[in-house]
Amino acid sequence: MKTIRAVTAMSAWSRTMRRDGVRIGFVPTMGALHDGHRALIRAARLACDAVVVSIFVNPLQFGPKEDLARYPRTFAEDFRLCEQEGTDTVFVPRAPALYPPAFETTVSVQRLTRRFEGCARPGHFEGVTTVVTKLLNIVHPDQAFFGQKDYQQAAVVTRMVADLNLETKIVIRPTVRESDGLALSSRNRFLSPDERAAATVLYRALSAGRDLIRAGEHSAKTVEAAMTRLIRAEPLARIEYLSVAHPTTLEDVQRVQGRDVLLLTVWIGQTRLLDNMVVNAR
Amino acid sequence: MKTIRAVTAMSAWSRTMRRDGVRIGFVPTMGALHDGHRALIRAARLACDAVVVSIFVNPLQFGPKEDLARYPRTFAEDFRLCEQEGTDTVFVPRAPALYPPAFETTVSVQRLTRRFEGCARPGHFEGVTTVVTKLLNIVHPDQAFFGQKDYQQAAVVTRMVADLNLETKIVIRPTVRESDGLALSSRNRFLSPDERAAATVLYRALSAGRDLIRAGEHSAKTVEAAMTRLIRAEPLARIEYLSVAHPTTLEDVQRVQGRDVLLLTVWIGQTRLLDNMVVNAR
Repeated sequence: MKTIRAVTAMSAWSRTMRRDGVRIGFVPTMGALHDGHRALIRAARLACDAVVVSIFVNPLQFGPKEDLARYPRTFAEDFRLCEQEGTDTVFVPRAPALYPPAFETTVSVQRLTRRFEGCARPGHFEGVTTVVTKLLNIVHPDQAFFGQKDYQQAAVVTRMVADLNLETKIVIRPTVRESDGLALSSRNRFLSPDERAAATVLYRALSAGRDLIRAGEHSAKTVEAAMTRLIRAEPLARIEYLSVAHPTTLEDVQRVQGRDVLLLTVWIGQTRLLDNMVVNAR
Repeated sequence: MKTIRAVTAMSAWSRTMRRDGVRIGFVPTMGALHDGHRALIRAARLACDAVVVSIFVNPLQFGPKEDLARYPRTFAEDFRLCEQEGTDTVFVPRAPALYPPAFETTVSVQRLTRRFEGCARPGHFEGVTTVVTKLLNIVHPDQAFFGQKDYQQAAVVTRMVADLNLETKIVIRPTVRESDGLALSSRNRFLSPDERAAATVLYRALSAGRDLIRAGEHSAKTVEAAMTRLIRAEPLARIEYLSVAHPTTLEDVQRVQGRDVLLLTVWIGQTRLLDNMVVNAR
């Protein structure tokens, strides 16, 4: 496995590969890799000839009140996981190489970023779309793999790639969960044992919402109310947002449409957890 | 010469060419081609193996008070000029193909766009950088050619391409002028004979500024004052802005730096004319 730090070396590697007809699969990450990332790398491995994983804790997507320094950094373990999964190249750019002093260009998706994470974290998605544009231009993959866990991020990146006519195909892979339903996240490590037990409430709420819709409930308000009640019964949990939304535009729905996404963000103690579930009414 | 209208067909053409090692030169235009564009196509022809000219009057870069409908459209002559200069492919996308209803992504260069044309035409450069990003992603040229006549635009595009790690090399070519110094522009056709005579004042002012600097003048204010006086002596001319600026950052300079750009926009009657000159002090 090759480690590349320089942007020019990464571009050159990609150019050589593409000239030889090699299809590149790309998994952009901020490190702190877990089995969710592992599933993305495996999907890339299956679909493409060569796999690039980037590890870059992107300062641009952290707000001024968010702790960039606290973000977990586990490089040695990350490299091991990449190696195990047959990654060809780990790309570890340095921040000043991606954002030199004269840097001043941003890529923004307008409507899709106005709600949910976009409200909660102003500037966050602009940071995401800007760095993803840069990484896609450097790595030039045929396919790039994102987890469904960050549903809005996946929707925003998909929109951005279509709007800017980028050649990469965006592939969204299902959320990987613990056996009790908790979605894997680098933030789970911050949970105390009590909080870890309480954190299953996200998946339980999503499942309850899904079951209601499948049982024929058509009112989004009723579904949201049932999910809210379930989460409120958990003393360690505090809802930040919870919504039945359109799966592409992420706009609120009044009546369940037949294909909808349940989106929520819940604080468990001091840890902010996201989860979602796409529900096809039967 | 091939004419391509569909975005997918343009991408496919480019992909095939690149696979064969063909270096693509690209001249993005809004049509109304003149000898300035001709010089860009010739430069592309000399530097690359295949030349693509795009003709697209980009609605995104026109403000609400600017008349998109009034922009000259001379497709038949444009095609003839492209053909004469050995263009391989003319790309003529339709607006709804580049901007479908769900389109909502913008590319913005922040600081460089705050002055001059960016002040005068809010949203203009965002329209330019967004469409240029899209066109570069569709055409995927090795080199793209821009005229120095739109100096700030060339600076903004160069910055954007560096910041987003686009693979295309941006080549800036000198302004093409009439024998009396008037810079070629699609807007010159709007000038009456009297206005056409008056319009030489832009080049005369730039030349006067250059001569002062070369004669040893160090104060930007003195240079600007001399240029302003010269233009004010022309009754049909009205200055919108006029500045001695840094050639890369476009910030005002107090003292002439040794390499500076003289930038100005002057109304001649109802027609808004831009011009500039880079001055290397001797």
